[in-house]
Amino acid sequence: MVELAFDKMNNGLLPAIAQDFRTGEVLMLGFMDRSAWEKTVATGKATYFSRTRNKLWTKGETSGHHQVVKEIRIDCDNDTVLLKVEQLGPGACHTGHRSCFYQVVNGDDIKIDGSPAFDPQEVYKK
Amino acid sequence: MVELAFDKMNNGLLPAIAQDFRTGEVLMLGFMDRSAWEKTVATGKATYFSRTRNKLWTKGETSGHHQVVKEIRIDCDNDTVLLKVEQLGPGACHTGHRSCFYQVVNGDDIKIDGSPAFDPQEVYKK
Repeated sequence: MVELAFDKMNNGLLPAIAQDFRTGEVLMLGFMDRSAWEKTVATGKATYFSRTRNKLWTKGETSGHHQVVKEIRIDCDNDTVLLKVEQLGPGACHTGHRSCFYQVVNGDDIKIDGSPAFDPQEVYKK
Repeated sequence: MVELAFDKMNNGLLPAIAQDFRTGEVLMLGFMDRSAWEKTVATGKATYFSRTRNKLWTKGETSGHHQVVKEIRIDCDNDTVLLKVEQLGPGACHTGHRSCFYQVVNGDDIKIDGSPAFDPQEVYKK
Protein backbone atom coordinates (compact mmCIF):
# COMPACT_ATOMS: atom_id res chain seq x y z
CA MET A 1 0.00 0.00 0.00
CA VAL A 2 1.21 3.51 -0.76
CA GLU A 3 2.73 5.09 2.34
CA LEU A 4 1.65 8.58 3.41
CA ALA A 5 3.42 11.03 5.73
CA PHE A 6 1.25 10.40 8.79
CA ASP A 7 4.15 11.28 11.07
CA LYS A 8 4.26 14.80 9.68
CA MET A 9 1.13 15.87 11.52
CA ASN A 10 1.30 15.88 15.30
CA ASN A 11 -1.96 14.04 15.62
CA GLY A 12 -1.29 11.61 12.76
CA LEU A 13 -4.30 12.91 10.84
CA LEU A 14 -4.02 14.00 7.22
CA PRO A 15 -6.63 16.12 5.44
CA ALA A 16 -8.63 14.33 2.75
CA ILE A 17 -10.69 16.24 0.20
CA ALA A 18 -13.70 14.58 -1.42
CA GLN A 19 -14.47 15.95 -4.87
CA ASP A 20 -17.34 14.94 -7.15
CA PHE A 21 -15.67 12.90 -9.88
CA ARG A 22 -18.05 14.19 -12.54
CA THR A 23 -18.53 17.88 -11.76
CA GLY A 24 -15.37 18.70 -9.80
CA GLU A 25 -17.46 20.13 -6.97
CA VAL A 26 -15.62 19.93 -3.66
CA LEU A 27 -18.03 18.08 -1.36
CA MET A 28 -16.25 17.97 1.99
CA LEU A 29 -12.97 17.66 3.81
CA GLY A 30 -12.33 14.99 6.38
CA PHE A 31 -9.26 13.64 8.13
CA MET A 32 -7.62 10.24 7.78
CA ASP A 33 -5.42 8.34 10.14
CA ARG A 34 -3.56 5.31 8.84
CA SER A 35 -6.53 2.99 9.45
CA ALA A 36 -8.90 5.27 7.56
CA TRP A 37 -6.49 5.47 4.64
CA GLU A 38 -6.00 1.72 4.50
CA LYS A 39 -9.72 1.03 4.76
CA THR A 40 -10.48 3.56 2.01
CA VAL A 41 -7.94 1.98 -0.34
CA ALA A 42 -9.02 -1.57 0.52
CA THR A 43 -12.78 -1.06 0.28
CA GLY A 44 -13.17 1.73 -2.28
CA LYS A 45 -15.49 3.57 0.10
CA ALA A 46 -14.32 6.83 1.61
CA THR A 47 -13.50 6.34 5.29
CA TYR A 48 -12.37 9.10 7.61
CA PHE A 49 -11.36 9.46 11.22
CA SER A 50 -14.01 11.37 13.13
CA ARG A 51 -12.38 13.79 15.52
CA THR A 52 -15.61 14.43 17.39
CA ARG A 53 -16.46 10.75 17.81
CA ASN A 54 -12.80 9.68 17.99
CA LYS A 55 -13.26 6.66 15.73
CA LEU A 56 -13.23 5.48 12.14
CA TRP A 57 -16.17 6.67 10.15
CA THR A 58 -17.14 5.28 6.78
CA LYS A 59 -19.07 8.08 5.13
CA GLY A 60 -22.67 6.96 4.71
CA GLU A 61 -22.69 4.34 7.46
CA THR A 62 -25.66 6.13 9.04
CA SER A 63 -27.14 8.03 6.11
CA GLY A 64 -26.48 5.47 3.39
CA HIS A 65 -24.84 8.29 1.43
CA HIS A 66 -21.60 6.44 0.71
CA GLN A 67 -18.81 7.91 -1.35
CA VAL A 68 -17.61 5.45 -3.97
CA VAL A 69 -13.96 6.18 -4.69
CA LYS A 70 -13.24 6.57 -8.40
CA GLU A 71 -9.69 7.89 -8.15
CA ILE A 72 -7.22 8.61 -5.37
CA ARG A 73 -4.60 11.31 -5.69
CA ILE A 74 -2.01 12.41 -3.16
CA ASP A 75 -0.12 15.67 -3.12
CA CYS A 76 3.56 16.43 -3.66
CA ASP A 77 4.36 15.98 0.05
CA ASN A 78 2.34 12.78 0.49
CA ASP A 79 0.43 14.45 3.29
CA THR A 80 -2.91 15.34 1.70
CA VAL A 81 -5.40 13.05 -0.04
CA LEU A 82 -7.75 13.96 -2.87
CA LEU A 83 -10.57 11.50 -3.45
CA LYS A 84 -12.60 11.72 -6.62
CA VAL A 85 -15.88 10.16 -5.60
CA GLU A 86 -19.34 9.27 -6.71
CA GLN A 87 -21.49 10.68 -3.94
CA LEU A 88 -24.43 8.33 -3.42
CA GLY A 89 -27.71 9.83 -2.28
CA PRO A 90 -28.63 13.50 -2.41
CA GLY A 91 -25.67 15.00 -0.59
CA ALA A 92 -22.53 14.81 1.49
CA CYS A 93 -23.25 17.31 4.25
CA HIS A 94 -24.88 16.48 7.57
CA THR A 95 -26.91 19.71 7.20
CA GLY A 96 -28.66 18.34 4.12
CA HIS A 97 -26.69 20.33 1.58
CA ARG A 98 -25.03 18.53 -1.28
CA SER A 99 -21.64 20.04 -0.43
CA CYS A 100 -20.40 21.15 2.99
CA PHE A 101 -19.14 24.35 1.32
CA TYR A 102 -22.50 26.08 0.94
CA GLN A 103 -21.46 29.21 2.86
CA VAL A 104 -20.08 31.93 0.60
CA VAL A 105 -18.15 34.69 2.32
CA ASN A 106 -19.43 38.04 1.12
CA GLY A 107 -17.52 40.79 2.89
CA ASP A 108 -18.43 40.51 6.55
CA ASP A 109 -21.46 38.37 5.79
CA ILE A 110 -22.19 34.83 4.77
CA LYS A 111 -24.50 34.01 1.91
CA ILE A 112 -26.03 30.54 1.78
CA ASP A 113 -25.69 29.00 -1.68
CA GLY A 114 -28.56 26.69 -2.55
CA SER A 115 -31.02 24.79 -0.43
CA PRO A 116 -30.68 21.52 1.44
CA ALA A 117 -31.08 18.49 -0.80
CA PHE A 118 -32.45 16.32 1.99
CA ASP A 119 -33.85 16.55 5.50
CA PRO A 120 -31.13 15.53 7.96
CA GLN A 121 -33.68 14.78 10.66
CA GLU A 122 -35.16 12.11 8.41
CA VAL A 123 -31.83 10.69 7.30
CA TYR A 124 -30.05 10.63 10.63
CA LYS A 125 -32.96 9.59 12.83
CA LYS A 126 -32.42 6.46 14.89
CA MET B 1 -14.72 39.77 9.33
CA VAL B 2 -16.27 36.32 9.29
CA GLU B 3 -15.10 34.30 12.29
CA LEU B 4 -13.76 30.78 11.80
CA ALA B 5 -13.36 27.99 14.36
CA PHE B 6 -9.63 28.35 14.87
CA ASP B 7 -9.93 27.05 18.42
CA LYS B 8 -11.22 23.72 17.16
CA MET B 9 -7.81 22.62 15.95
CA ASN B 10 -5.14 22.15 18.60
CA ASN B 11 -2.60 24.12 16.62
CA GLY B 12 -5.04 26.83 15.49
CA LEU B 13 -4.50 25.93 11.85
CA LEU B 14 -7.42 25.26 9.52
CA PRO B 15 -7.08 23.50 6.16
CA ALA B 16 -7.63 25.69 3.10
CA ILE B 17 -8.22 24.20 -0.33
CA ALA B 18 -7.31 26.18 -3.44
CA GLN B 19 -9.40 25.29 -6.47
CA ASP B 20 -9.09 26.70 -9.97
CA PHE B 21 -12.13 28.95 -10.32
CA ARG B 22 -12.54 28.11 -14.01
CA THR B 23 -11.85 24.38 -14.27
CA GLY B 24 -12.57 23.18 -10.73
CA GLU B 25 -9.15 21.53 -10.56
CA VAL B 26 -7.93 21.26 -6.98
CA LEU B 27 -4.53 22.94 -7.01
CA MET B 28 -3.24 22.58 -3.46
CA LEU B 29 -4.10 22.49 0.20
CA GLY B 30 -2.49 24.80 2.73
CA PHE B 31 -3.20 25.79 6.31
CA MET B 32 -4.38 29.10 7.67
CA ASP B 33 -4.02 30.60 11.09
CA ARG B 34 -6.08 33.66 11.95
CA SER B 35 -3.51 36.04 10.45
CA ALA B 36 -3.42 34.15 7.16
CA TRP B 37 -7.22 34.15 7.00
CA GLU B 38 -7.45 37.87 7.69
CA LYS B 39 -4.72 38.70 5.19
CA THR B 40 -6.37 36.57 2.50
CA VAL B 41 -9.73 38.27 3.01
CA ALA B 42 -8.20 41.74 3.19
CA THR B 43 -5.85 41.46 0.21
CA GLY B 44 -7.63 39.02 -2.12
CA LYS B 45 -4.40 37.04 -2.47
CA ALA B 46 -4.24 33.55 -0.98
CA THR B 47 -2.05 33.57 2.13
CA TYR B 48 -1.26 30.51 4.18
CA PHE B 49 0.71 29.66 7.29
CA SER B 50 3.81 27.69 6.38
CA ARG B 51 4.34 24.92 8.90
CA THR B 52 7.86 24.24 7.66
CA ARG B 53 8.93 27.88 7.75
CA ASN B 54 6.67 28.73 10.72
CA LYS B 55 5.46 32.02 9.23
CA LEU B 56 2.87 33.61 7.00
CA TRP B 57 3.31 32.82 3.36
CA THR B 58 1.53 34.62 0.57
CA LYS B 59 1.47 32.15 -2.28
CA GLY B 60 3.65 33.51 -5.08
CA GLU B 61 5.83 35.79 -2.96
CA THR B 62 8.91 33.96 -4.30
CA SER B 63 7.66 32.51 -7.58
CA GLY B 64 5.32 35.33 -8.60
CA HIS B 65 2.62 32.67 -9.03
CA HIS B 66 0.02 34.42 -6.90
CA GLN B 67 -3.47 33.06 -6.37
CA VAL B 68 -6.08 35.75 -6.95
CA VAL B 69 -9.10 34.92 -4.82
CA LYS B 70 -12.35 34.92 -6.81
CA GLU B 71 -14.62 33.40 -4.17
CA ILE B 72 -14.27 32.23 -0.58
CA ARG B 73 -16.41 29.46 0.84
CA ILE B 74 -16.34 27.93 4.28
CA ASP B 75 -17.75 24.61 5.32
CA CYS B 76 -20.66 23.73 7.59
CA ASP B 77 -18.45 23.69 10.70
CA ASN B 78 -16.60 26.93 9.88
CA ASP B 79 -13.33 25.04 10.13
CA THR B 80 -12.30 24.51 6.51
CA VAL B 81 -11.79 27.12 3.79
CA LEU B 82 -12.34 26.67 0.06
CA LEU B 83 -10.75 29.32 -2.12
CA LYS B 84 -11.73 29.59 -5.76
CA VAL B 85 -8.68 31.18 -7.31
CA GLU B 86 -7.13 32.37 -10.49
CA GLN B 87 -3.70 30.76 -10.41
CA LEU B 88 -1.23 33.19 -11.95
CA GLY B 89 1.74 31.73 -13.79
CA PRO B 90 2.08 28.17 -15.00
CA GLY B 91 1.37 26.32 -11.78
CA ALA B 92 0.77 26.08 -8.04
CA CYS B 93 3.18 23.32 -7.03
CA HIS B 94 6.76 23.83 -5.93
CA THR B 95 7.68 20.79 -8.05
CA GLY B 96 6.66 22.61 -11.22
CA HIS B 97 3.36 20.81 -11.70
CA ARG B 98 0.22 22.85 -12.16
CA SER B 99 -1.50 21.08 -9.27
CA CYS B 100 0.11 19.51 -6.21
CA PHE B 101 -2.13 16.47 -6.77
CA TYR B 102 -0.22 14.97 -9.71
CA GLN B 103 0.32 11.59 -8.02
CA VAL B 104 -2.42 9.08 -8.84
CA VAL B 105 -2.59 6.04 -6.58
CA ASN B 106 -2.78 2.92 -8.71
CA GLY B 107 -2.94 -0.11 -6.45
CA ASP B 108 0.41 -0.22 -4.65
CA ASP B 109 2.02 2.14 -7.14
CA ILE B 110 1.92 5.82 -7.94
CA LYS B 111 1.42 7.08 -11.47
CA ILE B 112 2.52 10.62 -12.28
CA ASP B 113 -0.16 12.54 -14.14
CA GLY B 114 1.24 15.07 -16.58
CA SER B 115 4.56 16.84 -16.73
CA PRO B 116 5.89 19.86 -14.87
CA ALA B 117 4.68 23.14 -16.30
CA PHE B 118 7.75 25.05 -15.20
CA ASP B 119 11.27 24.47 -13.93
CA PRO B 120 11.29 25.06 -10.17
CA GLN B 121 15.04 25.62 -10.17
CA GLU B 122 14.52 28.60 -12.43
CA VAL B 123 11.52 29.96 -10.56
CA TYR B 124 12.78 29.55 -7.02
CA LYS B 125 16.42 30.53 -7.58
CA LYS B 126 17.70 33.39 -5.48
